[in-house]
Amino acid sequence: MPIRRPEPIAVRRNRRPKPKPETDALGFGRFFTDHMFMMDYEDSRGWHDPRIVPYGPIELDPAAKVLHYGQMTFEGMKAYRSPSGGIRLFRPDMNLKRLSRSNVRLGIPPIDEELVSEAIRRLVLLDRDWLPAAPGTSLYIRPFILAVEPLLGVSPSREYRLIMIMTPVGSYYEKGGDPVSIRIETEYVRAVRGGLGGAKTAGNYAASLKAQEEAASRGFAQVLWLDGVHRKYIEEVGSMNVFFRIGEKVVTPALSGSILDGVTRDSVLRLLNHWGIGTEERRIAIDEVAAACRNGTMAEAFGTGTAAVVSPIGELDWDGERLLVGNPGEAGPLTRRLYDELTGIQTGRAPDPFGWTVALDGSEEPAKPGRD
Amino acid sequence: MPIRRPEPIAVRRNRRPKPKPETDALGFGRFFTDHMFMMDYEDSRGWHDPRIVPYGPIELDPAAKVLHYGQMTFEGMKAYRSPSGGIRLFRPDMNLKRLSRSNVRLGIPPIDEELVSEAIRRLVLLDRDWLPAAPGTSLYIRPFILAVEPLLGVSPSREYRLIMIMTPVGSYYEKGGDPVSIRIETEYVRAVRGGLGGAKTAGNYAASLKAQEEAASRGFAQVLWLDGVHRKYIEEVGSMNVFFRIGEKVVTPALSGSILDGVTRDSVLRLLNHWGIGTEERRIAIDEVAAACRNGTMAEAFGTGTAAVVSPIGELDWDGERLLVGNPGEAGPLTRRLYDELTGIQTGRAPDPFGWTVALDGSEEPAKPGRD
Repeated sequence: MPIRRPEPIAVRRNRRPKPKPETDALGFGRFFTDHMFMMDYEDSRGWHDPRIVPYGPIELDPAAKVLHYGQMTFEGMKAYRSPSGGIRLFRPDMNLKRLSRSNVRLGIPPIDEELVSEAIRRLVLLDRDWLPAAPGTSLYIRPFILAVEPLLGVSPSREYRLIMIMTPVGSYYEKGGDPVSIRIETEYVRAVRGGLGGAKTAGNYAASLKAQEEAASRGFAQVLWLDGVHRKYIEEVGSMNVFFRIGEKVVTPALSGSILDGVTRDSVLRLLNHWGIGTEERRIAIDEVAAACRNGTMAEAFGTGTAAVVSPIGELDWDGERLLVGNPGEAGPLTRRLYDELTGIQTGRAPDPFGWTVALDGSEEPAKPGRD
Repeated sequence: MPIRRPEPIAVRRNRRPKPKPETDALGFGRFFTDHMFMMDYEDSRGWHDPRIVPYGPIELDPAAKVLHYGQMTFEGMKAYRSPSGGIRLFRPDMNLKRLSRSNVRLGIPPIDEELVSEAIRRLVLLDRDWLPAAPGTSLYIRPFILAVEPLLGVSPSREYRLIMIMTPVGSYYEKGGDPVSIRIETEYVRAVRGGLGGAKTAGNYAASLKAQEEAASRGFAQVLWLDGVHRKYIEEVGSMNVFFRIGEKVVTPALSGSILDGVTRDSVLRLLNHWGIGTEERRIAIDEVAAACRNGTMAEAFGTGTAAVVSPIGELDWDGERLLVGNPGEAGPLTRRLYDELTGIQTGRAPDPFGWTVALDGSEEPAKPGRD
């Protein structure tokens, strides 16, 4: 089915807006705004009926394929309040391109990225009062596509629904910017080359829950995933990409097909290159990480992702051995610089030399979307 | 939360029963009966409110965790019409035990297997008129558990819903009992040790859709999965376990953690042992399979699963090489014998020396559930 000319987005306003939560109570993904976007797909009609409606329960046939076979994709991006009161998105084109790539892997029909981009704009502007203003806060935008055909055969669905919901968020991690302890996962595997690891889809997160729960019960904030083939090479940390500063080089796992192509990961690499700091995308063995921690050359380690932006790692636990990173108890200088620079660009407090931000209203000169 | 004493199952009857489909139109998982079972879980209350209600759409918050992170498990089993008009289930205790094992892997709280067993009995009896009587038909029962807490943090849900729906089914494969052509999948991977492959959960099926679609577009019925580590050892065929008769031995992949512990797989192994036919559960390299096809010792190959019971494989495609199994175009004698014996036991046409079937009504002496 070809992509159709965008239909206009219908809007049905919520006549019973909810009270906004206090900033301190925000957490991550706990409160949802007054509206959501929806759009439907059938093989015979393509995507149709784009609409903004009051946030509320959705109806699904209990045989809807997504509820049995997990055929779905999603994205996560943020809108930020700028100092002048305007609203900015950070590289939304990257998220929509990745959504399209995930769709290919999951057998989901292509979306009209321009229409979804317009839907984001309309939805954020309609619920703009939900965008918190305190430092570190933002409005998290979650588009997701569900296979909704009510048919239990294991085959791609012929019906889909795209939904977009939004949640005002505080800091993703309760401990804020303090370095966290990470457990190196040696039993469970998140994904493997040839599997779904490179796509943003539910199954990867389902695979992580047990390991995350066991790590949390032992006092660790996240797990560090090793590859499923050799059980040796670093993949991700929790649901973030991971970076290590070893000596004066910053290294991160190469995109091998089993890890997610993070927008923040890409932004960090580009900032580091811009600053003249050497980076390497390659295979990183856990032994190399352990050796660097033991001999004191592991200066910094951090995770990157839309939710946490840049999250410092203070120590790693490898089957009971404590591997310390840099100066215990404090985020390293590069970690802090990256966090400050990225959040500065995202919120409009700092210049945006890469054209990464997109202004959503008339009070600021719209920046050009990044072209990568 | 401890398992609570079973509450009585409330029943709200459907006052607008649907017309039953013609047997020829059944297919697999296309029509659903008039009622479904539901039960809810909250951390503070445990499982509660077991009820049978009219089949119909369910409401979910769009932030329900299952829609984003795939935290869910499911099962599939069948009820059969016996020659005397009675209804039999086949080894339902095995399915409920596996559901409990899947729940552990997915971080889902334990269920009361006895209560769910009673729910199956009540639901099947209430919708017994939906059970088709023609040979090869049955009533497929699909219990599934969804994480429904509306919270976007990646962590196990604190709220769940167990749902059970039923669908009258014809033959799973359109071609019926004819041997099918299978493509050996060399790019995509279904699951890997340490991942979810041993659990019955959505992510495994999501991972299979793209490969299945590509195989179907080339005229193949299913894919044969190789392991994700060595890309060499046989795992499953489509969503079935797989067996090969090589010479006079029947071999099937050992349960390594990445393949499903099939109820039909177990039943086939026990039948073969009962018949004095040698079986081996071990690693099977694709090279061994290819060599046996080439030198003519690959006498038979078949998939096993609840949906298809026993499904003969006629040929394998390995990167373009056609590997022929046994006599082209016809199911082998052991494949047919297993199919006849299993469906005979399931429907009550044949004696049940293992005590595998459970009669659901008063017209037959209830058999004892199998104890494995």
